[in-house]
Amino acid sequence: MTDYTQWEGFEGRIWKDEINVRDFIQKNYKQYEGDESFLTDPTEATNKLWTALQKLQKEERANGGILDMETEVVSSLTSYGPGYIDESLKDLEKVVGLQTDKPLKRAFMPFGGIRMAEEACTSNGYTPSEKLHEIFTKYSRTHNQGVFDAYTPEMKKARHSHIITGLPDTYGRGRIVGDYRRVALYGIDYLIEKKKEDLSNCGDRTMTDDVIRLREEISRQISALKGLKEMASIYGFDISQPAKNAKEAVQWLYFGYLGAVKTQNGAAMSVGRISTFLDIYIERDLEAKLITEEEAQELIDHLVMKFRMVKFARIPSYNQLFSGDPVWATLEVAGIGMDGRSMVTKNDYRFLHTLENMGPSPEPNLTVLYSSALPENFKKYASKISINTSSIQYENDDVMKPVWGDDYSICCCVSATQTGKEMQFFGARANLAKCLLYAINGGVDEKEHNQVGPAYKPITSEYLDYDEVMDKYIVMLDWLAELYVNTLNLIQYMHDKYYYEEEEMALIDTDVRRTFATGIAGFSHVIDSLSAIKYAKVKVVRDETGLAVGYETEGDFPKYGNDDDRADEIGEWLLKTFLKMIKKHHTYRDSEATTSILTITSNVVYGKATGATPDGREAFTPFAPGASPSYGAEENGLLASLNSVAKIPYHWALDGISNTQTMNPNALGHSENERINNLVQVLDGYFDQGAHHLNVNVFGKDKLLDAMEHPEKEEYANFTIRVSGYAVKFIDLTREQQLDVISRTCHEHM
Amino acid sequence: MTDYTQWEGFEGRIWKDEINVRDFIQKNYKQYEGDESFLTDPTEATNKLWTALQKLQKEERANGGILDMETEVVSSLTSYGPGYIDESLKDLEKVVGLQTDKPLKRAFMPFGGIRMAEEACTSNGYTPSEKLHEIFTKYSRTHNQGVFDAYTPEMKKARHSHIITGLPDTYGRGRIVGDYRRVALYGIDYLIEKKKEDLSNCGDRTMTDDVIRLREEISRQISALKGLKEMASIYGFDISQPAKNAKEAVQWLYFGYLGAVKTQNGAAMSVGRISTFLDIYIERDLEAKLITEEEAQELIDHLVMKFRMVKFARIPSYNQLFSGDPVWATLEVAGIGMDGRSMVTKNDYRFLHTLENMGPSPEPNLTVLYSSALPENFKKYASKISINTSSIQYENDDVMKPVWGDDYSICCCVSATQTGKEMQFFGARANLAKCLLYAINGGVDEKEHNQVGPAYKPITSEYLDYDEVMDKYIVMLDWLAELYVNTLNLIQYMHDKYYYEEEEMALIDTDVRRTFATGIAGFSHVIDSLSAIKYAKVKVVRDETGLAVGYETEGDFPKYGNDDDRADEIGEWLLKTFLKMIKKHHTYRDSEATTSILTITSNVVYGKATGATPDGREAFTPFAPGASPSYGAEENGLLASLNSVAKIPYHWALDGISNTQTMNPNALGHSENERINNLVQVLDGYFDQGAHHLNVNVFGKDKLLDAMEHPEKEEYANFTIRVSGYAVKFIDLTREQQLDVISRTCHEHM
Repeated sequence: MTDYTQWEGFEGRIWKDEINVRDFIQKNYKQYEGDESFLTDPTEATNKLWTALQKLQKEERANGGILDMETEVVSSLTSYGPGYIDESLKDLEKVVGLQTDKPLKRAFMPFGGIRMAEEACTSNGYTPSEKLHEIFTKYSRTHNQGVFDAYTPEMKKARHSHIITGLPDTYGRGRIVGDYRRVALYGIDYLIEKKKEDLSNCGDRTMTDDVIRLREEISRQISALKGLKEMASIYGFDISQPAKNAKEAVQWLYFGYLGAVKTQNGAAMSVGRISTFLDIYIERDLEAKLITEEEAQELIDHLVMKFRMVKFARIPSYNQLFSGDPVWATLEVAGIGMDGRSMVTKNDYRFLHTLENMGPSPEPNLTVLYSSALPENFKKYASKISINTSSIQYENDDVMKPVWGDDYSICCCVSATQTGKEMQFFGARANLAKCLLYAINGGVDEKEHNQVGPAYKPITSEYLDYDEVMDKYIVMLDWLAELYVNTLNLIQYMHDKYYYEEEEMALIDTDVRRTFATGIAGFSHVIDSLSAIKYAKVKVVRDETGLAVGYETEGDFPKYGNDDDRADEIGEWLLKTFLKMIKKHHTYRDSEATTSILTITSNVVYGKATGATPDGREAFTPFAPGASPSYGAEENGLLASLNSVAKIPYHWALDGISNTQTMNPNALGHSENERINNLVQVLDGYFDQGAHHLNVNVFGKDKLLDAMEHPEKEEYANFTIRVSGYAVKFIDLTREQQLDVISRTCHEHM
Repeated sequence: MTDYTQWEGFEGRIWKDEINVRDFIQKNYKQYEGDESFLTDPTEATNKLWTALQKLQKEERANGGILDMETEVVSSLTSYGPGYIDESLKDLEKVVGLQTDKPLKRAFMPFGGIRMAEEACTSNGYTPSEKLHEIFTKYSRTHNQGVFDAYTPEMKKARHSHIITGLPDTYGRGRIVGDYRRVALYGIDYLIEKKKEDLSNCGDRTMTDDVIRLREEISRQISALKGLKEMASIYGFDISQPAKNAKEAVQWLYFGYLGAVKTQNGAAMSVGRISTFLDIYIERDLEAKLITEEEAQELIDHLVMKFRMVKFARIPSYNQLFSGDPVWATLEVAGIGMDGRSMVTKNDYRFLHTLENMGPSPEPNLTVLYSSALPENFKKYASKISINTSSIQYENDDVMKPVWGDDYSICCCVSATQTGKEMQFFGARANLAKCLLYAINGGVDEKEHNQVGPAYKPITSEYLDYDEVMDKYIVMLDWLAELYVNTLNLIQYMHDKYYYEEEEMALIDTDVRRTFATGIAGFSHVIDSLSAIKYAKVKVVRDETGLAVGYETEGDFPKYGNDDDRADEIGEWLLKTFLKMIKKHHTYRDSEATTSILTITSNVVYGKATGATPDGREAFTPFAPGASPSYGAEENGLLASLNSVAKIPYHWALDGISNTQTMNPNALGHSENERINNLVQVLDGYFDQGAHHLNVNVFGKDKLLDAMEHPEKEEYANFTIRVSGYAVKFIDLTREQQLDVISRTCHEHM
């Protein structure tokens, strides 16, 4: 049996002879049911570093959102020497490592597409390297080039009209969570040894394309592991062996993550489920009196500070989709083990406590894996942090655990993935609201007035007939599902070909499960539109060409978000119908198709590209985000709204169902205690019904309005809000996005 | 219907609305049954240019075989300005275009593998660019890197031991013949238009990996066509439209070929079947009195001069395999049409006449598609050229036509491929003689003494038992066939991925037929060895470890090459057995497996890696080349030897059966006429039996010995000999290769 002296004191056997971090955690973690009173304040080092970093963040904002950009060096594991937050404070950093040579300086990453990498520079006033332009146009092909070479005209049209949109063809697909804990637990040499074993066992005696591709990939993973070791050595660390204490565990793990964000600029670059794992190392050191609680908190604070610094160079169209410079460094706490034990440790408190020690922050995207069975103390502490910072989200461990086990990570906002055993082909989303308009208009786009969908017979009647609309909608949905899957197949193929994630995949099992994530946009608007057609009278307004461009609805109709089955059942039908259509088709690498109802902030872009809908939504205005009910549709308070969303069956939307709610502090109660208790009750009730996700914002509309008008106020510097699946600093949003957030329902009563 | 004014005077309809060069040829070519008396001497321009080129060739030889090498510029369609044989004579060049900016300067081609490209430089005393090293190690992956990342240890071992050898993993696979005639007949714009049509018809509604790959490939082909146009414009030509006369046709066609040799360095870069095609243009111009016969010959002479200049930068191990700097610019003349008409035109004479106008030359690799039904005058002229120059080869049109039609080209030495409709995955060869030794020694390599093949039970008896040997041989062959196919699958996959031949494939139908060419080495030695075991007594000589290292044969046994069925049937069995084993396996892109019995000059390298064989061949000495009988085995004269080879069924070796023979001029007769007539008779007799190929050398051993000792003599400067499937200048061979050639049977009587 393999045994390292660094493992002294750890229990268990299985995880020693094979890579099995879950087994290590289950055999070694120590539940904590106490309250937050053990937590400590930031150390002097933390304060100094955080002050320095905040100064840089302010400069960055003053500079239009970018502090510095690389233009000459292609980012790789080893393309930079060491970098620190502040050279004069570098001895204070307990966790080291930057993406580039300077803090907040954005790296140059051309493999996804040289044009995008260059546009990110030029749109921010930087001049990209001519030499690199030559290399990536003459010698080295890129993901983006491959995709556009293979696109069909139909795909290009659908992409242009935004009926399929947000596709990862101009940015890295992301959403792959390397199991960064492996670096700490096993050290690089062991990981290389196991990957070499995998390589020798890869493929029976028939060299099919699949086997050849995989063999090359494993070889590249092994190279990446060697590169990771070299990267660490630049900072003076030898990570070939397992980490021997908490400080090394944090540092080794972070190097694993740093390698990912040096080599990939995926939309979501999640950290994963690291809290319980690291607690094991901290507990061992605490027991051996090698560190104090202050030092333990300092380690976590410094690690979190590093996650707060991750940045990518983005292009304007990307920023419109995903506003506020997010990276989805998603990081989970809590959850319940398969054996029923709570997985809450002191470290879960420490991670949430960073929001107190260093103030609110959008990153890392802190996620509580929720269950009403979590220790009461922890539920209260999380609620308290929500109320005070609006920086965390909740996902239902009770519905995810049966599907993904007890060691899953969230790979973006709300999408679960088994840590180290799975990867996801991310695929943005299909605009089902626009698809409804295509059904009505026979495939003609209501904005561009061109034929995008198939030229089926349009609806020509003055009033919409429910049965006719449904017949036509189903046919058009079927067209869209097929086109969407094919488009994604092509993108994923090219991403593997030109921008393979060898560093992240090196930290994932070779025998990997692959999901094929699709997504739905415009969910609430389709529900309410179909409901209007069914239960009220919808008159079509046509332009001079006969194209339906508006709808006048006479009479009342049930709306999604009011716990009214008549509307909510339409949602369930829509989800199931679309996923079944998706699943009919061949998927790249035989991946498993899933879907999500989440839109990030892209609800604004999607909505702007979509004409008026029969639910009364005006043309070219934002959608409601994710699975949230439409703005103004909720007429029966927060609980009724939550009940509607909770009815969506999670196992039909395994990629996640995102719900964002804002409640006025007063709606929750008049004292801190009352608010905390009420929020815990809301969460228990919501998740016990099988709902998947909740973004909790606790503030009034007045605060938003004031922050929009006075972003310079000190109190708003770190004012963070949860949007669809992630958090942003409110003042980093565009005014358009701010207005969208303000227009969302803020529940004044339960 | 598409119609260009450039097509005025041409007959037919089908070829106008679709790309169909064969139809154009069949509707327009003019048979010629006369003799060579119409041929003209070289023009002054030809003499001047050829003198200049010969001077450069001499300098090249004096310089160790390399005149100049590029180290800073990656070769592409447009990476150089115009280049000429001699700046001061450039107005004399009727056909322009060089691979680089200077004559005989070898281009830098790193996509196959940067290490090889660099080794080609350093082994010739050039220092490759550091910048390009960085690019092709840090940013751009190469074919070679992909292959070695995916190789299994077993493949590496088999490659190292030379049981599988000559694999195109360190050089371009080549053997793809673009239909360069299309450039002349249609012009680039038409070709682009048709490829765009193909792109829009590529793939049903399911995006599988195959469809995605092909769509990307077509897009790259379209880019290559645009690049070709740009390349021509560098020389002042607009090739967007069809060629309007013979001069343009020759030039346009050559640009198509030039694009290929600027972008790929395949082992074989054949020109294809261009002679009859070009004759149509020349005839039209001759009839219209736009040119004279002198001018027509000058065009062909200048075109051939260009083909004589094609060079690639090679590494020493490549030169050992393929000695004498060959490029296989194979070019066919003659053949019979499907309708029974001879396809011999005056132009076929003109091409052969270049060997008189400018002396013998290995390139272009002139190939007569032979049939006894060819016009007598032509057969005699070809024989005369053979006798005087030993520079041409013959392949049996009667056996190839039923398989490949009447518009095939030879894509290397002897491998037919339908022009513009087919491409080949070239795969070098498996060493079946070594495999026999593995069968005897239980998979232990007789040279390296390590376990390479599977560790089956070795033969331990003192004398070899035929049945035991056969049982073990079959099992070992089966192992080898599987490993070989898998190795090739992997190489072809990576070649497509990293070094796709977009320029050549742009001139081939999108709906392409793909063959998967395997090959056999050691053919005659296996036959004679098995015959010895069967018909004589073979005693095993073992070393101290018990490994069989030598064989003592008691008694006589029939040998391949004497028209003795007992031996010849073993050859047929071997071929069929191995090909059936090959065909059991999955092949890349579902290509059609074929095999060949040809070894080029690699018979020396293969033999040097192979221990003694029971036929009496000494350890680590050369094999007989291709399908030729073993040196010294032929005891019954030329005709008996030819009869043996003719028994090999071509349809079981569709990739070709190479036979090289040398006959003393005196054996053919005492006057030129007698020799010519006798050679025609030999060819008629040989090919009428269904034999596939013959390299004809006519000289005595004395000449070879003298040339080896006195390479400086003027008469040997262009002394060309046919080796296995191609021709070389004798003095360009290594001494080892020269000795091998000298040791081959030179038939002194028929």
